[in-house]
Amino acid sequence: MADSDILQRLEAAIAERVKADPGTSYVAALNAKGQDAVLKKIGEEATETVIAAKSGDRAAIVHEVADLWFHCLVMMGRQGVALDEVLSELERREGRSGIAEKNARPK
Amino acid sequence: MADSDILQRLEAAIAERVKADPGTSYVAALNAKGQDAVLKKIGEEATETVIAAKSGDRAAIVHEVADLWFHCLVMMGRQGVALDEVLSELERREGRSGIAEKNARPK
Amino acid sequence: MADSDILQRLEAAIAERVKADPGTSYVAALNAKGQDAVLKKIGEEATETVIAAKSGDRAAIVHEVADLWFHCLVMMGRQGVALDEVLSELERREGRSGIAEKNARPK
Amino acid sequence: MADSDILQRLEAAIAERVKADPGTSYVAALNAKGQDAVLKKIGEEATETVIAAKSGDRAAIVHEVADLWFHCLVMMGRQGVALDEVLSELERREGRSGIAEKNARPK
Repeated sequence: MADSDILQRLEAAIAERVKADPGTSYVAALNAKGQDAVLKKIGEEATETVIAAKSGDRAAIVHEVADLWFHCLVMMGRQGVALDEVLSELERREGRSGIAEKNARPK
Repeated sequence: MADSDILQRLEAAIAERVKADPGTSYVAALNAKGQDAVLKKIGEEATETVIAAKSGDRAAIVHEVADLWFHCLVMMGRQGVALDEVLSELERREGRSGIAEKNARPK
Repeated sequence: MADSDILQRLEAAIAERVKADPGTSYVAALNAKGQDAVLKKIGEEATETVIAAKSGDRAAIVHEVADLWFHCLVMMGRQGVALDEVLSELERREGRSGIAEKNARPK
Repeated sequence: MADSDILQRLEAAIAERVKADPGTSYVAALNAKGQDAVLKKIGEEATETVIAAKSGDRAAIVHEVADLWFHCLVMMGRQGVALDEVLSELERREGRSGIAEKNARPK
């Protein structure tokens, strides 16, 4: 099983790699191309995720969702948005929806 | 700070809600519309993520990335892809890229 | 058969409708929401085009490509980009590729 | 000005080029990779269109919309959907909306 803090570690690794030599680091090279290059990757990987799901190709889904989330983290790093902000937003929704579900339960 | 296992909890919550009454649960209602409806949301939220980043709107980035990841989890639930598979793939990349970074260090 | 100048007529119609009452015109209502609303539609319709093609659903492909091109025209109208500029660009490519094809022919 | 039948000519050219040597024709090479490769281009070009519009970069808008429409034509060729079907659908909308606009006019 993956460590539950892998996304946090990846966020830290990306922050480190942005400063690396673009000749040896994918993140540094992508980042050096500017934000639009990162956003194009988000659009690309989202489309590939949709295609993988339509194909019912489980391995491709794993690969494309990982790519999509990875490039979201790269974009967030550029914009100064912390992973924790996105996770907190998801936590808020989990709680809220949890309540909605609870209310919906037959008494 | 958000719990580091919020995504795992959300994955479990989505698996629960899929079985709920579509009249009271967003996840159940979306799921009942079929996979294409979920995939349309992935495309939509990816576009909104790109727009939010181009606008430099931090709050919108948090919101849209949360939406995007949430709908990826809903799709993965339908396809029987576990969150852990995506996190393991990201862990694998972190390691691999970590090595690439290490090799790149001046001796 | 459709008139070959339908896109030109649609471009003119959109320019007219932008000025109409948002209560009665879809184009005026969409336009009043601002550019991001138009761009979200482009992302949405592109995803729906991909889904329709993966489904091999010919009627849906016709519908979604029409939606996608229509919303491109609405965006272009906002940005002062003429349909003729896009058609000229396509003409340029047709010519260029035509030459490439010609060169490729066996002597 | 571009000929108003440039899209029709492009549709015919694409149908021709699909049969060409993938080593010399972009369309043949893309087509040989399969439908998913074409759909990825549609997703990519739609994202680039959104980015170009957000940047207010008129030249990029022209370029990206041309790319997007071009790849829609390649996909339609694969699926046996004629350009005329899309144009007829747009003509139908123009008429319908035209009536809605007319009704909305003050008497």
